[in-house]
Amino acid sequence: MRVTTALLCCVPGLGQADQAAAHVKTLPGGTAPSGMGAAVPALEHYTHDLLLGDVWKRPGLSPRDRSIVTLTVLIARGQSTELPFYLRRALDSGVKPGEVSEIITHLAFYAGWANATTATHAAGTVFAERGIGADQLPAAKVRHLPLDKPSEEQRAAMVEENFGKVAPGVVKYTTDALFRDLWLRPGLAPRDRSMVTVSALVAGGQSAQINFHLNRAMDSGLTEKEAGEILTQLAFYAGWPNVFSAMAVFKEVFAQRPPAVSAR
Amino acid sequence: MRVTTALLCCVPGLGQADQAAAHVKTLPGGTAPSGMGAAVPALEHYTHDLLLGDVWKRPGLSPRDRSIVTLTVLIARGQSTELPFYLRRALDSGVKPGEVSEIITHLAFYAGWANATTATHAAGTVFAERGIGADQLPAAKVRHLPLDKPSEEQRAAMVEENFGKVAPGVVKYTTDALFRDLWLRPGLAPRDRSMVTVSALVAGGQSAQINFHLNRAMDSGLTEKEAGEILTQLAFYAGWPNVFSAMAVFKEVFAQRPPAVSAR
Amino acid sequence: MRVTTALLCCVPGLGQADQAAAHVKTLPGGTAPSGMGAAVPALEHYTHDLLLGDVWKRPGLSPRDRSIVTLTVLIARGQSTELPFYLRRALDSGVKPGEVSEIITHLAFYAGWANATTATHAAGTVFAERGIGADQLPAAKVRHLPLDKPSEEQRAAMVEENFGKVAPGVVKYTTDALFRDLWLRPGLAPRDRSMVTVSALVAGGQSAQINFHLNRAMDSGLTEKEAGEILTQLAFYAGWPNVFSAMAVFKEVFAQRPPAVSAR
Repeated sequence: MRVTTALLCCVPGLGQADQAAAHVKTLPGGTAPSGMGAAVPALEHYTHDLLLGDVWKRPGLSPRDRSIVTLTVLIARGQSTELPFYLRRALDSGVKPGEVSEIITHLAFYAGWANATTATHAAGTVFAERGIGADQLPAAKVRHLPLDKPSEEQRAAMVEENFGKVAPGVVKYTTDALFRDLWLRPGLAPRDRSMVTVSALVAGGQSAQINFHLNRAMDSGLTEKEAGEILTQLAFYAGWPNVFSAMAVFKEVFAQRPPAVSAR
Repeated sequence: MRVTTALLCCVPGLGQADQAAAHVKTLPGGTAPSGMGAAVPALEHYTHDLLLGDVWKRPGLSPRDRSIVTLTVLIARGQSTELPFYLRRALDSGVKPGEVSEIITHLAFYAGWANATTATHAAGTVFAERGIGADQLPAAKVRHLPLDKPSEEQRAAMVEENFGKVAPGVVKYTTDALFRDLWLRPGLAPRDRSMVTVSALVAGGQSAQINFHLNRAMDSGLTEKEAGEILTQLAFYAGWPNVFSAMAVFKEVFAQRPPAVSAR
Repeated sequence: MRVTTALLCCVPGLGQADQAAAHVKTLPGGTAPSGMGAAVPALEHYTHDLLLGDVWKRPGLSPRDRSIVTLTVLIARGQSTELPFYLRRALDSGVKPGEVSEIITHLAFYAGWANATTATHAAGTVFAERGIGADQLPAAKVRHLPLDKPSEEQRAAMVEENFGKVAPGVVKYTTDALFRDLWLRPGLAPRDRSMVTVSALVAGGQSAQINFHLNRAMDSGLTEKEAGEILTQLAFYAGWPNVFSAMAVFKEVFAQRPPAVSAR
């Protein structure tokens, strides 16, 4: 049990007072005193009752998906202090170790290399705790998912026409490294990869890029209801202002999509 | 005195050379060598002469308010290394411990949960240094300030109409958790809560959300002159580009408000 | 050798397996195991083969300039974990210590004071490793480059007219501290200072401020081709979404400039 206690450090701090209660409820990921309650009792209260106790339990988006959205925000924004807690919670909620590994790789491209590199440290620590080894993680080189050739060629042609002369390197790697390599890695389903991308865009305030990726997400099976709940989860983890800016774009995308598709 | 020295670590670094001078001037928050001067003499010079020695002393915004703006930036952007120095400076400038606690809680919602959670560690450390205990901090549950019902119902109706079908969870918590709970907590005056919100928006580059909150700030008593000085303080702590983008929105808001109101 | 090993910690992690190979290739900046490969084999692979092995070697932008762009992103986004590796790489690629010092100072103004202050710690450490002392660093006060008076007076008048009544402090320091002081410090060439500024704007998602600074960069000699390669480098370090948003502005700027000038 000593080991368990040690492993539980560095979590969103529930005060000493709440710790016993929290353990009884066995919050995924574990919990431990971090002094949050001592300095900021209101935040501890909201964390316990509102965020973990209410938001995370809403229907419409599974705890697994909420974990993916939350990990994405923490990695994309470089918030490494909270990462170990939410990595454990993710694994406890059904996110596979290999999916965690692919999420980090995906975010290297979508949220900047150093944010992903930094996240590998926390992942390494939590994987070691859980005895997760190379056999559970996707190899560096893998057999790709099949490519939707017509759609990808259309995308590539549009980007080439728009930006081929502005930044030929960006155009080249967008095709070669992103859409014909990273996106085809099978360790994270296309729908989940899109959920990660959209969450990173909201968390980074990058509204201009949401339209393309939210449509792609919904083409891969994300429902309107799930998208709305992703925004709810993001309100807490990426902050209200980012979500209010993104919500206007989500509304537009929902309105533009044919009803049959957006209702699936 | 050994203790004091230890407590002074982790501050915006004034080089060894300036330390004695700085102590004589007893800068709020204390000061200590951190090697800044060794590697980047120009930054040390600007920090000492321009930022702490000039900008912070400008009339038009009190050192207390400048501290609130600065803490907001550091918390909202996850810049925890500098936080202890500015927490001490804030307490020395008249920001009450309970206000610090409420600022952190407020920013959980407006700048993302993990940024606030991380800030509780620095706050806990500085509160412990100063012997600040639970009796000086707002409880988790408090008696609310009175609600301006007509105005709040109008806001809620507008958001419900715009986004009720896009993200019902966001709409619900915006009302229940934000405007009918967090904003009514008495430990931070509405004018200060708005100042925190607006500063976080500028620091996050979230121009699209400034109009509503700057108007709200000015409805609660923030003057045009103070708003302009908030921008000046933010130029240094949130960077020039964020301030130039925000300044255009501030100008619009000033122009739209009836003269009598904007002049109070 | 014990010392060397210690100094090599905290670098973009190449797994144990690749370390020998990496040493043989003597990547600038050194390399060391950090567990990246253990938890995220794909990221290690992309780092080694795609990023360091391909992107960094592209013609069109020198390794020195790529280092400046990369340092800018890490400092501007507060990604201090990766900073020591890229500081070493920068010095190995021909960035002078004095230029590093000026980049940090410049970013205090363009990316927020605390990001720069935090970066002084890593710079201090790496400079100490390399025996770089005050004689290689620009002093706090220096003789300025000559001012282009007509152009600067035009800029100042425009900003005064637009914002003089909104935020007089911002307008004052924009002139006194930025354009008639910081920008005239000779330790970083105007073209490089602009490259740092533009890179920081892209990394911060501040598209609205790019037009002015990209034009200024090109007026100081940055070519279209170099600008396009800066975007390629930034795609990896600042993330694809920031680059896609910026690329549209770069395209506009390229189109607006007279051909003779943009082709130089």
